[in-house]
Amino acid sequence: MHVGLIHHVGYVVADLDAEIPAYRDVLGMEVGVREVMPDQGVEAVMLGSGPSYVELIAPVTEDTGVARFLAKKGPGMHHVAFVVPHLESTLRELADEGVELIDTVPRRGLGGHMVAFLHPRSTGGVLTELVEDH
Amino acid sequence: MHVGLIHHVGYVVADLDAEIPAYRDVLGMEVGVREVMPDQGVEAVMLGSGPSYVELIAPVTEDTGVARFLAKKGPGMHHVAFVVPHLESTLRELADEGVELIDTVPRRGLGGHMVAFLHPRSTGGVLTELVEDH
Repeated sequence: MHVGLIHHVGYVVADLDAEIPAYRDVLGMEVGVREVMPDQGVEAVMLGSGPSYVELIAPVTEDTGVARFLAKKGPGMHHVAFVVPHLESTLRELADEGVELIDTVPRRGLGGHMVAFLHPRSTGGVLTELVEDH
Repeated sequence: MHVGLIHHVGYVVADLDAEIPAYRDVLGMEVGVREVMPDQGVEAVMLGSGPSYVELIAPVTEDTGVARFLAKKGPGMHHVAFVVPHLESTLRELADEGVELIDTVPRRGLGGHMVAFLHPRSTGGVLTELVEDH
């Protein structure tokens, strides 16, 4: 695998509406797709007009990884997502190399992209996401 | 200003040589320019073949912002850098809008790029860098 483009950086925040203006007004980022993702207990919004984005993520329930991150570390950078052209074959290749995967098969991410997370133990301590984009 | 491409994400680490293999071998990133930047008390290396990169940063002296970051928060994501086409005029425009700048004029960054940092107070709590690239 060779990653190239950073698709987005994910920031955990307490309140999406309170944080959107800084990105929209200071960095000139368009406010894009916004969704509650019940299986992860978060609401997220994608900011920017591409090719790279900022994804703001806020917990909507208490018992999730993102809620624990916010309680422990406060708001800030949470993960980095790189584009790969073929996610399923990339995950197989990484698994064969002994890389620790959080998602062994692609799942649906914000805006309908297929995504998968790699475990920070395999990626220098930084939570790393792969996003399929052809 | 409208930011688009994420030029790099900066990760603070304790030891560059210990962390490079994860990025080179797992994410397939080329090991690029590496420099000690004495004025900032850090050594840094750029990883990747573009258009986006990971910049690993390790302190080489004790009394720097990066050394304090590492002591307080441990290794992890430190800043996000976006490409802008004209940095000097962008900084003037941001200052006119009341955005808090760490660097009011461009300075030399890793590999000779001209860069400037915006204060996290103006950018949703995340240290944000602008990199000039035409």
